[in-house]
Amino acid sequence: MSEPRVRIGLAGCGVVGTGILQLLRDNADTIGARLGAPIEVVGIAVRDPSKVRDPLVPADLLVDDPMTMARHEDVDVVVEVMGGLDPAGAVVRTALEGGKHVVTANKALIAEAGEELLELAEERRVDLYFEAAVAGGIPIIRTLREALASDRIVALSGIVNGTSNYILSRMTSEGLDFGEALAEAQAAGYAEADPTLDINGGDARHKLAILATLAFGARVDVQAIPMEGIDVVSALDIAFAQRFGYVIKPLAIGRPTEDGSLDLRVHPALVPESSVLASIHGALNAVHIRGAMMGPALMSGPGAGALPTAMSVVSDIVDVGRNLLSGAHARVPSRAFRASTLQALPLRKPSEHRGRFYLRFDVHDRMGVLGRIANVLGGFGVSIEQMVQEGGRSAESPHATLVMLTHDALAGDVRGALEEIDRLRHTTGPSRALRIEDD
Amino acid sequence: MSEPRVRIGLAGCGVVGTGILQLLRDNADTIGARLGAPIEVVGIAVRDPSKVRDPLVPADLLVDDPMTMARHEDVDVVVEVMGGLDPAGAVVRTALEGGKHVVTANKALIAEAGEELLELAEERRVDLYFEAAVAGGIPIIRTLREALASDRIVALSGIVNGTSNYILSRMTSEGLDFGEALAEAQAAGYAEADPTLDINGGDARHKLAILATLAFGARVDVQAIPMEGIDVVSALDIAFAQRFGYVIKPLAIGRPTEDGSLDLRVHPALVPESSVLASIHGALNAVHIRGAMMGPALMSGPGAGALPTAMSVVSDIVDVGRNLLSGAHARVPSRAFRASTLQALPLRKPSEHRGRFYLRFDVHDRMGVLGRIANVLGGFGVSIEQMVQEGGRSAESPHATLVMLTHDALAGDVRGALEEIDRLRHTTGPSRALRIEDD
Repeated sequence: MSEPRVRIGLAGCGVVGTGILQLLRDNADTIGARLGAPIEVVGIAVRDPSKVRDPLVPADLLVDDPMTMARHEDVDVVVEVMGGLDPAGAVVRTALEGGKHVVTANKALIAEAGEELLELAEERRVDLYFEAAVAGGIPIIRTLREALASDRIVALSGIVNGTSNYILSRMTSEGLDFGEALAEAQAAGYAEADPTLDINGGDARHKLAILATLAFGARVDVQAIPMEGIDVVSALDIAFAQRFGYVIKPLAIGRPTEDGSLDLRVHPALVPESSVLASIHGALNAVHIRGAMMGPALMSGPGAGALPTAMSVVSDIVDVGRNLLSGAHARVPSRAFRASTLQALPLRKPSEHRGRFYLRFDVHDRMGVLGRIANVLGGFGVSIEQMVQEGGRSAESPHATLVMLTHDALAGDVRGALEEIDRLRHTTGPSRALRIEDD
Repeated sequence: MSEPRVRIGLAGCGVVGTGILQLLRDNADTIGARLGAPIEVVGIAVRDPSKVRDPLVPADLLVDDPMTMARHEDVDVVVEVMGGLDPAGAVVRTALEGGKHVVTANKALIAEAGEELLELAEERRVDLYFEAAVAGGIPIIRTLREALASDRIVALSGIVNGTSNYILSRMTSEGLDFGEALAEAQAAGYAEADPTLDINGGDARHKLAILATLAFGARVDVQAIPMEGIDVVSALDIAFAQRFGYVIKPLAIGRPTEDGSLDLRVHPALVPESSVLASIHGALNAVHIRGAMMGPALMSGPGAGALPTAMSVVSDIVDVGRNLLSGAHARVPSRAFRASTLQALPLRKPSEHRGRFYLRFDVHDRMGVLGRIANVLGGFGVSIEQMVQEGGRSAESPHATLVMLTHDALAGDVRGALEEIDRLRHTTGPSRALRIEDD
């Protein structure tokens, strides 16, 4: 019999797939020593094998049907880096059904079908690993499944979309407006040609669904998670936030509440400038976790990029390989994801969120405007903790901006107050509300 | 045959041991579900079984000889939380020799004898885990051994002693001087009655030795790592650092250099206030890693405390338990620690360190003093990037303070210059130099 080795089949060979090949080549010695055996690529499925590729990609291993990898008799581990639900889902399903281990970087697939796929993996006694699906190079999945296996997570919050963090960081450091920062992110390769999912929170929502399932054992309907895009944030809001000692960050938040519901949300929010999340600059990601026993912990690192993502994928392959070599498949129970223990917790309604708010009103600078706005807020039970007014007080500047930080208030009440204020004709544009996350 | 379970014997039952018992009780359901079997405590060795203890500690399990646990026929995993080298070392050795798995929180033991113990564990095909030995609740060992298994670490820097971070944090936020902050740390239970090892860097050095071995595959002589205590830092230095946009943090740094040596050091240093290490406040720990493929990553959390440390210990027990239940002992090769692959890299001499420095001179405010100091620095090839002078310029205030930030300079040259300057009779006290870590 030949020397032991771990044989992989790559389904997909875009930037992440090419990164995997680079890493397997450049770090072959380290990986071999740590795994105890070499990793061998036995096949690579791409859409068009005739396309000219990076010299890293061996032409003789290319095939055009990803299903070939799922059924390949020499493949131990199928590495799915195609992305998207179809045909990636079918490839992963077929591989697991055939008793192959799977490593995937596919957040959409895990967020939408993770429960079913992990159940299938457990049934077939094979491993399904997906570290790279959330926060690129940060080992957050492993930490939730293993390092914190003895603890109960009581809250998580994170910056899980690098593009939106890059945009808000550039708006903060350079005073750019949203459009300029977005154009820069696209030029720098951080944002896709169609950046919708990054900006509107859709991408972060997929990742939050995966994290919440692992952290809280909750079955989560991705589409039901409330989200708000970062395009509501203006350069003006960022400047005002700074005056109050805050930085605006794109957050994903998860927390079981006292009434048995789950508070999940994706939105930009003000965080204290001395907080660690405020120091996560540029395209970096970070996840902050609070454990009942451990207390607070944070992990940060690159959330995307070919090499960081490839690093997570290959570390997963090493882990699966260790199981393979020691005969310990399905060593880490998939229970956190399994139907039998997952709870379908109701999501808390956005209007029931209670917390502090940043409010901005653009108003006609007339006597009595502040009093009128304060009255409406007071009528809804929203009380003001701090206020600044800017502009106005002269004929050349008939408009003023009022910015307020509230005490704890119900989001539904804030919304009601703002709708009434926007009907007053004292305002010159729609009022803005952003949440403040002080924890 | 009875249901599978993981049977542990506790060697030691101080604050961490009691924390383990609390965690096993409070999180029994979570742990059982994630491990796939319950954890059962079959014995607890303490120095004096007759002493009255926390009601969590079952009196009927107490024995007075820790060796009993190492030899107990019903114990699968010996959990060593006694601390110190003796008799903890003998207990761990005996347990491993007898084919028992070991989980320990003992940084001194792993730093001094980790290589030998891991070799023994590998030989007997059992597991030796020690997550809690470094940075309490932060899963940094697991991350280095598993999550980054596919990458090559090119640098690490961290805050690995919570007491010294607490002291410098309080000096920074409250303007306390060193003695006041230390007294407060002792009152708050962060510092020992004898805080020497926390303050002089000895504790951080143990942890750095363990991290460097795992990250760089280096065999490290703990006692040879250059260290400098935080007691050289005054409230004045902290205030001046802030004026230049820096915060002073107690760092442990490790990096392979271009000439094949290893740069390891423990000392306070200035870090940019916008950096993530600057945002690690109070008694929190953090480790920053740079991977060749991954780029920068950071993990932070509580570095000490009964429950965070217990959490790491129990997560290790869960991990060992998973190996036990799936028959996969020694699944993660100990190679990173093993004699056959560990390299005895020479440590770089402190004088060969090249970087920027913060310099403070307390001087008589006379004409020509600045010129004289600048000349000496220039003579040693140390060039000044920024300078501020404070005090002086009046009969009531004959003394002045000069603070300078240098361009890159050799530590040996800076030291030579300071020795010459201190002989000039222009200074009223010894000059101070602190490193600046800009990365």
